[in-house]
Amino acid sequence: VTKTFPETARAEAEALLRCVARARSRGWCEGTGGNFSVVVSRKPLQLLVTPSGADKADLRTQDLLLVGADAAPAEGWSGRPSDEAPLHVAVAERTGAGAIVHTHSVWGTLLGERFGASGGFRIRGYEMLKGLAGVRSHEQEIFVPVVANSQDMAELGAAVRRELAARAGLAGLLIAGHGLYAWGAGVAEARRHLEIFEFLFEVVGRRASLEPFTG
Amino acid sequence: VTKTFPETARAEAEALLRCVARARSRGWCEGTGGNFSVVVSRKPLQLLVTPSGADKADLRTQDLLLVGADAAPAEGWSGRPSDEAPLHVAVAERTGAGAIVHTHSVWGTLLGERFGASGGFRIRGYEMLKGLAGVRSHEQEIFVPVVANSQDMAELGAAVRRELAARAGLAGLLIAGHGLYAWGAGVAEARRHLEIFEFLFEVVGRRASLEPFTG
Amino acid sequence: VTKTFPETARAEAEALLRCVARARSRGWCEGTGGNFSVVVSRKPLQLLVTPSGADKADLRTQDLLLVGADAAPAEGWSGRPSDEAPLHVAVAERTGAGAIVHTHSVWGTLLGERFGASGGFRIRGYEMLKGLAGVRSHEQEIFVPVVANSQDMAELGAAVRRELAARAGLAGLLIAGHGLYAWGAGVAEARRHLEIFEFLFEVVGRRASLEPFTG
Amino acid sequence: VTKTFPETARAEAEALLRCVARARSRGWCEGTGGNFSVVVSRKPLQLLVTPSGADKADLRTQDLLLVGADAAPAEGWSGRPSDEAPLHVAVAERTGAGAIVHTHSVWGTLLGERFGASGGFRIRGYEMLKGLAGVRSHEQEIFVPVVANSQDMAELGAAVRRELAARAGLAGLLIAGHGLYAWGAGVAEARRHLEIFEFLFEVVGRRASLEPFTG
Repeated sequence: VTKTFPETARAEAEALLRCVARARSRGWCEGTGGNFSVVVSRKPLQLLVTPSGADKADLRTQDLLLVGADAAPAEGWSGRPSDEAPLHVAVAERTGAGAIVHTHSVWGTLLGERFGASGGFRIRGYEMLKGLAGVRSHEQEIFVPVVANSQDMAELGAAVRRELAARAGLAGLLIAGHGLYAWGAGVAEARRHLEIFEFLFEVVGRRASLEPFTG
Repeated sequence: VTKTFPETARAEAEALLRCVARARSRGWCEGTGGNFSVVVSRKPLQLLVTPSGADKADLRTQDLLLVGADAAPAEGWSGRPSDEAPLHVAVAERTGAGAIVHTHSVWGTLLGERFGASGGFRIRGYEMLKGLAGVRSHEQEIFVPVVANSQDMAELGAAVRRELAARAGLAGLLIAGHGLYAWGAGVAEARRHLEIFEFLFEVVGRRASLEPFTG
Repeated sequence: VTKTFPETARAEAEALLRCVARARSRGWCEGTGGNFSVVVSRKPLQLLVTPSGADKADLRTQDLLLVGADAAPAEGWSGRPSDEAPLHVAVAERTGAGAIVHTHSVWGTLLGERFGASGGFRIRGYEMLKGLAGVRSHEQEIFVPVVANSQDMAELGAAVRRELAARAGLAGLLIAGHGLYAWGAGVAEARRHLEIFEFLFEVVGRRASLEPFTG
Repeated sequence: VTKTFPETARAEAEALLRCVARARSRGWCEGTGGNFSVVVSRKPLQLLVTPSGADKADLRTQDLLLVGADAAPAEGWSGRPSDEAPLHVAVAERTGAGAIVHTHSVWGTLLGERFGASGGFRIRGYEMLKGLAGVRSHEQEIFVPVVANSQDMAELGAAVRRELAARAGLAGLLIAGHGLYAWGAGVAEARRHLEIFEFLFEVVGRRASLEPFTG
């Protein structure tokens, strides 16, 4: 058995790679940080996910790995998927997302650290909120959950699943001192959500240096 | 009837797309944020405007939509123009501008939020002010109006028209928590005004973290 | 008489254009801000200088204008050189510089504003100071003069000449609320000085938000 | 005797140049700042190192210089290696690193200045710490030594050697008011460490403007 690239997902995989390149150029994937996936099939659940420890500047479509609901490589596939593939699976299962992006930005790291103890923070009053699916007005308040970080992927996955079960309609969440998970129906929406969250994090972070911000 | 691209406006349309690309690369059009237009004719008023919900990184000249004074697609044109097309029409009618740009930057968002209650803020003392049409000296003070945000385009359009009627010679204004509208006789001037405003917003925003700024 | 490009200066002119492009990409020439020159001959003094009001993103070597010690176009040359050409002449005459760059950065604007009243500020303790010609140690203190801004080029030129006469060995100075003039023996050194000053301005500006900075 | 490029090191040399270009584009090598090396052989120790005073934007593989354990050009090689080549030798000898990078960032400069008196600072709690070799958890604390700056390379080299001898497993250190030295088994790891340190420095630096930071 040798690996076969799921051709039906090629366009989305190429879109994912463009999304990765853009995130890389913004400084959201420093080192080998960040991981990204697209859902290839629902039953059984299969995702193409970025490999573990890859410099995102050098990534090609053929470096993506097909994994199943156990986050392990599918039959015929070798290589090591991102250590955080279980979190991608958790998001895909709980939200029905078709694409999932995970990035490490400076502002996301700082806000995750700052609001880790309170479990998250609210954002309200910005037009850019409307870039998140389901938000129709700048007056609609969103809550950005902050989940405690862990090196135990089972524990972290369970925490993410609990958060997703408790709050409907989320487009993303932070892991404290770690980074953002954002997702969407496909790569275009996930990429949009990523940029909207990062924009809002920068607004909120810089606002805190202009005046007190309590979330 | 099928759409016919207004060839007399092609050079300006191409210049507009270069302006969009530059704004995108600066982080002023995150998500699908921002919208842009050029005036094609005055009588009747017609504008080429960017489509609703487009990722500005992928935009081509042929994606622009011709709209009339009602902000609806012209005869033979289909597709959905930016939801904010009525504001472009308002600016074009009131100011005689030939090109209009609307962007969402972090500093514009923060300053719009901060000075929304007071209706705007003054900027004075910077050489870069001379990049705005009609400003001859760094000592000439400008006022940047901040209009309250609304999801009702008729209401927002009326507020923008009132502001434009009340103050002659504006080159731009902010919508609170939302972003900048800037314009000029053509794309070159609108682009210049955009960059000048964004530069000044960053100066004013960073100055506020160095010392009190009261506008 | 028609204009003849001074071929002996072509390599420096091309280097100048690369320097302009790099400054543009850094946000130091927003709008149509900034102007740049190379000295073509000493006796008589002739410089190639960027034209007035040009978007620096579109500039080509053939857009440069040859001017004399009166900052007016040389015989056979038409077009309008930068309004600040007299300042380039002043720097070239007083310092013997072979290339002069003038940029508008956010940090340079803020520091020029802040230290305008005191006539300048000192920088000391940074390795990057060694990037300025004549500085051999991070412990060597430099003084960055800040000259009051003026729209009268004769007045501003006289102020710059006084400053240059009073202080030997300067590699640059600020005009308050306006921007940086930096220069060097040729384009390579002027470009290096530009980057060193801008780096140090950002260090000094950000330091002021971490702790009091009194210059 | 004429110089012969060590072909076994060509791939690493090309990777180093890509690392230089990336660091340049991030603003970590302003002016002619920064220097970079790869180890070519261990016995005798030989490194390819960037030349003194080079604009990193123009650098090509053939500009690298082969130096020995005395940091002087190898037999048949002319040109002037970076003045800081002795520090590269010190790091290569003490740590066994295969690639060494030295950059000047704004945040590295500010943190080096701030924590110079206390000899360094601790970082803890960030997922990105795991990008450093040997760090397995965000809860693992690292110490970033800050060595006093000196223009005497023998003195500075001795200080670096003392620091490296005193602390096992370092991936980098700061020189006060000067910049970062980072290294790794090869260019890929050194580049990763560079980006991780710079990311963490920005996080720590910006955090200090949000709340007190005492290291």
